Amino acid sequence: MNILETLQIRPFFWKNSFLYVLDQKQLPFKKTYIKCSTYKEAIECIKNMNVRGAPAIGLVGSYALCLALKNMDSKNFLDLLKKATDEIISARPTAYNLFYCVNRLKQKITLMFSSGKSKKEIFNEALSEAFRLEKENFESLNRLVNYGVKLIKKSSVVLTHCNTGALACGSVGTALGIIIEAYNKGKIQHVFVDETRPYLQGAKLTVFELEEAKVPYTLITDNMAAFVIKEKKVNCVIVGADRIARNGDTANKIGSLNLAILCSYYKIPFYVAAPFSSIDRSIPSGSYIKIEFRTPEEVIYVNEKPITVKKANVLHPAFDVTDAKLITAIITEKGIFRYPYDFSKIC
Amino acid sequence: MNILETLQIRPFFWKNSFLYVLDQKQLPFKKTYIKCSTYKEAIECIKNMNVRGAPAIGLVGSYALCLALKNMDSKNFLDLLKKATDEIISARPTAYNLFYCVNRLKQKITLMFSSGKSKKEIFNEALSEAFRLEKENFESLNRLVNYGVKLIKKSSVVLTHCNTGALACGSVGTALGIIIEAYNKGKIQHVFVDETRPYLQGAKLTVFELEEAKVPYTLITDNMAAFVIKEKKVNCVIVGADRIARNGDTANKIGSLNLAILCSYYKIPFYVAAPFSSIDRSIPSGSYIKIEFRTPEEVIYVNEKPITVKKANVLHPAFDVTDAKLITAIITEKGIFRYPYDFSKIC
Repeated sequence: MNILETLQIRPFFWKNSFLYVLDQKQLPFKKTYIKCSTYKEAIECIKNMNVRGAPAIGLVGSYALCLALKNMDSKNFLDLLKKATDEIISARPTAYNLFYCVNRLKQKITLMFSSGKSKKEIFNEALSEAFRLEKENFESLNRLVNYGVKLIKKSSVVLTHCNTGALACGSVGTALGIIIEAYNKGKIQHVFVDETRPYLQGAKLTVFELEEAKVPYTLITDNMAAFVIKEKKVNCVIVGADRIARNGDTANKIGSLNLAILCSYYKIPFYVAAPFSSIDRSIPSGSYIKIEFRTPEEVIYVNEKPITVKKANVLHPAFDVTDAKLITAIITEKGIFRYPYDFSKIC
Repeated sequence: MNILETLQIRPFFWKNSFLYVLDQKQLPFKKTYIKCSTYKEAIECIKNMNVRGAPAIGLVGSYALCLALKNMDSKNFLDLLKKATDEIISARPTAYNLFYCVNRLKQKITLMFSSGKSKKEIFNEALSEAFRLEKENFESLNRLVNYGVKLIKKSSVVLTHCNTGALACGSVGTALGIIIEAYNKGKIQHVFVDETRPYLQGAKLTVFELEEAKVPYTLITDNMAAFVIKEKKVNCVIVGADRIARNGDTANKIGSLNLAILCSYYKIPFYVAAPFSSIDRSIPSGSYIKIEFRTPEEVIYVNEKPITVKKANVLHPAFDVTDAKLITAIITEKGIFRYPYDFSKIC
């Protein structure tokens, strides 16, 4: 775990049988960790968005399953395992990484249980598998970042949405990882950051990470993107992904579709950066992706006070789906893919 | 002034030698009026956006000039008039109505002064002219609304941005006036309202007006527009305007350009509704429109608390310019215009 411990920002970590989750809702103002001793507490952290970002919640989900194992009766073991797994996976429905990580761990645990391993052995091996998932994630994202940097042209002005950095990924990040590394290699001139309503992950988290990384940025409200792309000569938009269908249709933070359409209009590339664990090969297209609808209160309240009438009628889809055709390239740890997307060639 | 006094919502009114401005920054929570006894106070109301909306600030500007007249020395009258006019017009640079109304009043006053009218006569006549401007605005917008309603197809789902109702116009409104009237005529099924960051005029003001008018609406964050247009089968988008160039290029609240591009992508009409007093025939195209840049604090602070690091680097254009080509029609009190725009035919 040495490589991971050297990371500057750790949105979660496992220590002495507990899972610690950085409370991202307090950022950039306070840096406090929530100590989870049960899997239910970890689920709450995912549901409440104390931790968010597809790769990060995948890994937190796998540690949550380790927490569940601690108090799992051997008698109804497989039933209890299924119950805990289902609960963790359904904490948030859209991100595929949560499903991927937790299911991989569940399969490993089931195999160990079937081969008669002791409870302690199962726990230790499950925890090792969770560490392995985290290490694999770290290595994958490093490779992904290297591929992504190649796509960035010299002196680029880029625009990004939501937060796809270390906070979202538990390591170097996806879209924001590429941006920071490209800046460090002298390829990026300036970064425009969508504030990303209603949760303001851009304003709270991406600004925080870019300040830490000393990358020149400008924060804008989401509705300024067209103005900025046109007037500030943005060269490309890069976002992350929560779930990618087999044909490349991509669910990502609400507002991503909007940006993809702007890129198409202004004829600049729209890039998606995500690890293979975000690709759901079980679904042929984006119409099969379940979009999470969250509470109106998350739109109505900002800084604990309402911005409108408290009973306002509100729609709050947390994600939207961008047609594969609108995506110039999908950047993964296994290479760069282009339309028409066919991930099977590499799998 | 009887017609005007019957209006349910009055963003400003003149009474007993004072101008009262509804403090829209307190809406929808409190309904308080700011009493202006000097033109400087009225300018502050415009600058601070206690009153906003192109038609409304045009009229408040004309009452501001009446307030200025009250204390205007006869000795340097024309110099003082010029000074007050310039100050009022430059309170906000983008909306053309402010320029139009204040300049028309100034010309009237200059003429009276040159013909030797007394200070009292000038004041009374200027005030009558300000009333006339308000009445003309009321009548124009009623006509505009009637033209606009004709464009709305039965059972329409519409999306609007910012606030373009009574609060923005001092009477029935432009885009929102059309929407409310079309709803009352049974032509509108549902209205989606962009919250309109950073000032949240959609969330605060349009929601307030639609609640009052009992029109079914759903509030969304600006970045949900693409999702909503696609998934909720929006039939058209209608917005107002702050300044329209001779060729139809239109400056309006930041985010309008974004919506126009979405409409073009989804092949639905994008309508602009504005009175002729928003058309600046002195400029050939949108590139001549001066865009107002406001303070970063208006983006950084929501409900008096920061949403990001206090020193965040922020861009805050208050408006953007939509290419005439992206505008399906411009709805005015003199009829409906279509690309290529030629307003001279009617003037």
